[in-house]
Amino acid sequence: MKVAVIGAGASGLTSIKCCLEEGLAPTCFERSDDIGGLWRFSDIIEHGRGSIYESVVSNTSKELMCYSDFLFPENWPNFVHNSKMLEYQRKYAEHFNLLKYIQFKTVVISVKKCKDFESSGQWYVTTENNGKQETTIFDAVMVCSGHHTDPYYPLESYPGIKQFKGKYFHSREYKNSDDYKGKRVVIVGMGNSAADIAVELSRTASQVFLSTRRGAWVISRVFDHGYPWDICFDTRFETFKRNSLLPMSIVSSLTEKKMNEWFCHANFGLQPVDRTQFKEPLLNDELPSRITCGFVLIKPPVSDFTETGVKFNDGSIEENIDVVIFATGYSFYFPFLDESVIKMEKNTVVLYKHIIPPTLEKPTSEMQARWLTRVFKGLCPFPPLTVVMDDIRKKHNSFTKRFGTTRENRLQVDFVEYVDELASDIGAKPNIFSMFLSDPLLAMALFFGPCTPTHFRLVGPGKWSPAREMILTTWDRIIKPTKTRVVNKGESTLSFVTKVLGALCVLAVIVAMFMYKY
Amino acid sequence: MKVAVIGAGASGLTSIKCCLEEGLAPTCFERSDDIGGLWRFSDIIEHGRGSIYESVVSNTSKELMCYSDFLFPENWPNFVHNSKMLEYQRKYAEHFNLLKYIQFKTVVISVKKCKDFESSGQWYVTTENNGKQETTIFDAVMVCSGHHTDPYYPLESYPGIKQFKGKYFHSREYKNSDDYKGKRVVIVGMGNSAADIAVELSRTASQVFLSTRRGAWVISRVFDHGYPWDICFDTRFETFKRNSLLPMSIVSSLTEKKMNEWFCHANFGLQPVDRTQFKEPLLNDELPSRITCGFVLIKPPVSDFTETGVKFNDGSIEENIDVVIFATGYSFYFPFLDESVIKMEKNTVVLYKHIIPPTLEKPTSEMQARWLTRVFKGLCPFPPLTVVMDDIRKKHNSFTKRFGTTRENRLQVDFVEYVDELASDIGAKPNIFSMFLSDPLLAMALFFGPCTPTHFRLVGPGKWSPAREMILTTWDRIIKPTKTRVVNKGESTLSFVTKVLGALCVLAVIVAMFMYKY
Repeated sequence: MKVAVIGAGASGLTSIKCCLEEGLAPTCFERSDDIGGLWRFSDIIEHGRGSIYESVVSNTSKELMCYSDFLFPENWPNFVHNSKMLEYQRKYAEHFNLLKYIQFKTVVISVKKCKDFESSGQWYVTTENNGKQETTIFDAVMVCSGHHTDPYYPLESYPGIKQFKGKYFHSREYKNSDDYKGKRVVIVGMGNSAADIAVELSRTASQVFLSTRRGAWVISRVFDHGYPWDICFDTRFETFKRNSLLPMSIVSSLTEKKMNEWFCHANFGLQPVDRTQFKEPLLNDELPSRITCGFVLIKPPVSDFTETGVKFNDGSIEENIDVVIFATGYSFYFPFLDESVIKMEKNTVVLYKHIIPPTLEKPTSEMQARWLTRVFKGLCPFPPLTVVMDDIRKKHNSFTKRFGTTRENRLQVDFVEYVDELASDIGAKPNIFSMFLSDPLLAMALFFGPCTPTHFRLVGPGKWSPAREMILTTWDRIIKPTKTRVVNKGESTLSFVTKVLGALCVLAVIVAMFMYKY
Repeated sequence: MKVAVIGAGASGLTSIKCCLEEGLAPTCFERSDDIGGLWRFSDIIEHGRGSIYESVVSNTSKELMCYSDFLFPENWPNFVHNSKMLEYQRKYAEHFNLLKYIQFKTVVISVKKCKDFESSGQWYVTTENNGKQETTIFDAVMVCSGHHTDPYYPLESYPGIKQFKGKYFHSREYKNSDDYKGKRVVIVGMGNSAADIAVELSRTASQVFLSTRRGAWVISRVFDHGYPWDICFDTRFETFKRNSLLPMSIVSSLTEKKMNEWFCHANFGLQPVDRTQFKEPLLNDELPSRITCGFVLIKPPVSDFTETGVKFNDGSIEENIDVVIFATGYSFYFPFLDESVIKMEKNTVVLYKHIIPPTLEKPTSEMQARWLTRVFKGLCPFPPLTVVMDDIRKKHNSFTKRFGTTRENRLQVDFVEYVDELASDIGAKPNIFSMFLSDPLLAMALFFGPCTPTHFRLVGPGKWSPAREMILTTWDRIIKPTKTRVVNKGESTLSFVTKVLGALCVLAVIVAMFMYKY
């Protein structure tokens, strides 16, 4: 069974590996001359490849971002710089011997159904290398080309931008803060790039204005007691609390309270317009500090541009603006697929279990590849069309209720629920409830600890023998890279009380679990 | 009555003003050609003047750092860049017409007692301007020359430093991160400069190592709910809780717990060796994030240097070190005073009410100047020598118990207690207890709100009529500079509960206050 894998980034690499493990024959087509995709920084902006700025650091911590059976070196930091992320991918490719399946400098021109598609399910994949086109038949196609290549750049909705005499460009073109000394800069948008660039420029520019229509909940990588934010958020226990244990209105209130613990978003001009909808929070460690020190000023939406200034919709005007950066995000972009294969509506793709959108923020791509290769082989049950459509409709409704309907959120899923569902389909989800009797220590780690990819290497296809030990040592690996100066911790007077309270909580939760689906 | 003021920085300026208000005749001698002292950034390092790096931002928020009757412009940020701090001093000098009392480019060579000092109390002050020396008799001298001019640079205690072939220098010489691209840098020390420089270099250097002997509690400018840290810490209520209401061991435990809320200091290698002694916490908004991202590595003390590397006392070695920066702080330095006037022992000066050490971290210098000018005029009672020595001894003991005995802490005081004591002496301390009946709103602000300098302009000498209004609008001015995009806050489901709890707390505290000294 021949599988075409499009793109040799983080998702493409694991897709090749999953194919190999399931006995399929992958061929990976990569447009550039190297692996790494989005994570491979370059000063040059290449068409069709993601473009990042020099300072990009991962938003997901290493224990959740890793491949399930190939962990990051344990002394690596919790959040890695893009250069380290690339190094990790190189190690992965080398360890599993993946490079020989990749055809570099090869662009996929089109993916079309074969004439006998209804019976064979096969595809014509046309590629171009060095000016020469070639068409090959594949049994299946995995699209791993990313969704950060085609900038969303709606200049037409900004009156007066054509007469603005300063520089303006999409954030995709931003590389570093070298040329901004003493400049006055307006950044439009409130995604992770917008905030990262605002904070970085605030150290060289004379003033940075960050203009946002909807605001955002901002959280820091350094979360509760200093643990990575996702280690705290993405546990089965937290997911259970959010989605099953508590009513929606309480969850909303608690989340809003939690979000305002670090700083009051209203006082910092950042509060989301619809504060009850918890779209993916913005991750930035320094934005509040840069605001309270006055280097970044939060502004409402731009109403229009003059030759040298920017007007905002509260009537305020900022003059002598040198640069405007539109950090307005990206659109989905699959130029090689025609509408009969995938139909995009308002930047949305309607897909069963979100499988074709190639990378999500979380490293779900590995689980997606594991699921998909099992589907290809017919080992994972694929329900009839009516069931599929019903599933899509139901999820779409629940999604809209929880996350709102903004353009940026289309790929958002509840991480733990989503990977659990896929793992369940292929038989890789551990049965935590029965494990509470057979291996209570591990069960506790699975339920209360971060839901790491390695959870899905305990049972089923791809079972990996070190998985149990790796799960039980997760916290050690989180602490190791930062605890580089050892001191005697000593015992606090309050620690006994804390421990008693802790024990009571655990008891309470175990009781609560009996009501839960495990 | 003629008063010599030495130095035209933040303290010198307010000393001139206090002299004028008390009808004394000030003459200020300033070594350089401009006001601003430490806060005036320059690329060049000048002998005898503080030297700061380009990015320095105030550690104290504007509502606490301001002069009591001349507030910062209300749209200025809560923490100001050094260039803004200088601008503020210029406004102050201009508003109160202080410049004409300053002799620039004039160095004070010596301050000696006149022969008839015992009867006259007068001083010979010898100055040098343009190579010409001059001696003048003054009735009093105010030393406002700062304590950040003479670097503490104990190279002799670092074996092997002479053979180290990389660059090494005191942090006083650090200006910005321009020349550190790709360098491996070791920073020795754990004061505010050490952490600031480590964080700044971590964005250009290839690796930063921050070596500390004792560790530190690190807090952020963005404190509880995003309010400036000192707004939360420096209230009469907090001071009352810390120093009077609760036993020492509980205060220790609570403080340790509070300090570890943001992140666990043990896990980040930062926990202080003696965790129960709460020396002035280190203020840094970004250090934990830079550690968890691996750009800054915390190391134990240096044991010795090789030609190209640094050995630490846990046995670890870092090779290929390009630069070592000793951020080891400053010594007191009053070269113009001989031992009969002020005696320094182990970087300590024994002084009644800390009055001669010219600037403290907090803007107590204004209150000190107000107190001192009243003492000069004989309007503030100065007790006999035995009482003075007893006061010094008692305070020294209580200080050692609370803050420890390290070199850096010698100027530390409990801010609120200290200014209250000085204000009390000159009759500028408001009677909060009786005010709870006459003006409860103001009393609440004085007790629960930040103890701003304006508290001491309500009554007594220097009473300032806008003081009441300024105190009641403190919170508005804190929020104004950051709330630059306005959204509807809406009501949270939990806010009612919060309010009820809040009201109960206030009640409880009012009851507790009856036991307190007000």
